[in-house]
Amino acid sequence: MHFTSEQRLDDGVLEREFTLGEIPGILWTPAPAPAPAPASAPAPLILISPPPLGLRKVYPRLAGRARYYAAEYGFAAATIELPGSGDRPRWAAAEQARADLRRVMEAGEPVGDEIIDALILPLVEKAVPEWQAALDALLALPEIGGPVGYEGGVISIGIRLAVVEPRIVAAGFFAGSLVPAAMFEEARQVTIPLHVLLQWDDEGNDRQAALDLFDAFGTQQKTLHANMGGHTGVPQFELDAGARFFARHLK
Amino acid sequence: MHFTSEQRLDDGVLEREFTLGEIPGILWTPAPAPAPAPASAPAPLILISPPPLGLRKVYPRLAGRARYYAAEYGFAAATIELPGSGDRPRWAAAEQARADLRRVMEAGEPVGDEIIDALILPLVEKAVPEWQAALDALLALPEIGGPVGYEGGVISIGIRLAVVEPRIVAAGFFAGSLVPAAMFEEARQVTIPLHVLLQWDDEGNDRQAALDLFDAFGTQQKTLHANMGGHTGVPQFELDAGARFFARHLK
Repeated sequence: MHFTSEQRLDDGVLEREFTLGEIPGILWTPAPAPAPAPASAPAPLILISPPPLGLRKVYPRLAGRARYYAAEYGFAAATIELPGSGDRPRWAAAEQARADLRRVMEAGEPVGDEIIDALILPLVEKAVPEWQAALDALLALPEIGGPVGYEGGVISIGIRLAVVEPRIVAAGFFAGSLVPAAMFEEARQVTIPLHVLLQWDDEGNDRQAALDLFDAFGTQQKTLHANMGGHTGVPQFELDAGARFFARHLK
Repeated sequence: MHFTSEQRLDDGVLEREFTLGEIPGILWTPAPAPAPAPASAPAPLILISPPPLGLRKVYPRLAGRARYYAAEYGFAAATIELPGSGDRPRWAAAEQARADLRRVMEAGEPVGDEIIDALILPLVEKAVPEWQAALDALLALPEIGGPVGYEGGVISIGIRLAVVEPRIVAAGFFAGSLVPAAMFEEARQVTIPLHVLLQWDDEGNDRQAALDLFDAFGTQQKTLHANMGGHTGVPQFELDAGARFFARHLK
């Protein structure tokens, strides 16, 4: 892990860009406690997974969340670019699946299982070991301790991580419906506390499929927050509600 | 409105029992600001409607919520006994409807519309003017100002109040399914912000009916918080989530 840039932001949060092999990422850490106070304890970490649109494009959204967590709750937060997003190399099968998805959605046709599987399953296979490698590197920094929370991004990546990565003790998901049947089955194996957001009139996600996925999660500590409006209309107050969820489980 | 008892509780909250005509009630108000501070401004008010089990029986639950609102958020909170509950006179048709409900639920039969209508509609007709009279009396006290929130109790009473009482600017409901079809229609006329709790495995409420009711509310500012477990299993952290909802709309 190599830091490539560093800036202290006006809320005191330190933002550092890094690379992990070929993968770019960003780390936000809270301002150190003022001089007379004892040195800050290692901060709990929240992994903020981006949507597959490229870090540069989603930077404002991600940085807004990360800085809030760091400045208001003393959490560290980090993200890395997903495989095939931003400047990272694409692969032919994913490009084909994306083109197929666009085609059927523009035609108003239902999205078939083959398209969802082709789009999501290879992405999960590639992304999960990368997030685990990032976790290794981040937890090796003296200013970051456990426990670890995970949120956002492609929900199937989060489901797999919640099942296979014991260092993640709580997760916040945005309920989506482009979830392969196989991942739906994995959801039953999730036993960590979950905080799930649902947009009631999400133009890109089927409401009943999202409710079915919430129902499928194996954990008994799961809460659904449903709000009105479309995919990008999550109310501002949900940022703090999510932070409080993590504060209950990471402190 | 006559106060019949008064005690200062150990969190500084003042608890006063009162009668409004024949109706018993309880008012909780926050501790006054300590001496050097300016006199406290009139507190916003939250009406906490009880379930129809009698105030004496549900006192611990209600007082716990009211004292939290008063001590942590500076809200006043008040409740009154529902018609036909506690020591208040019953009426024959309601007793018959309750007996019918018990019978079909014990037999595991579906609860028919006639039973729900007979149980709920007269209760709404009787209760709503009483809550409005209580609101008149409470808002006449110098220590209480607007705006007013409403929460809890029989959801149909809350729906009617949210539609007809303009002084109520936000409401917290516990999603139930024993809702007359007529009240379902009134739900479409609710335009104030709503905070709705749903217990996912509620033994006394049908999940789909509760989701349909949430969907029916006319307001665009509505949030559903669904948690696992049965009717009485609402997690402790939802108390503060509800308080924050009221803080956004009553301050």
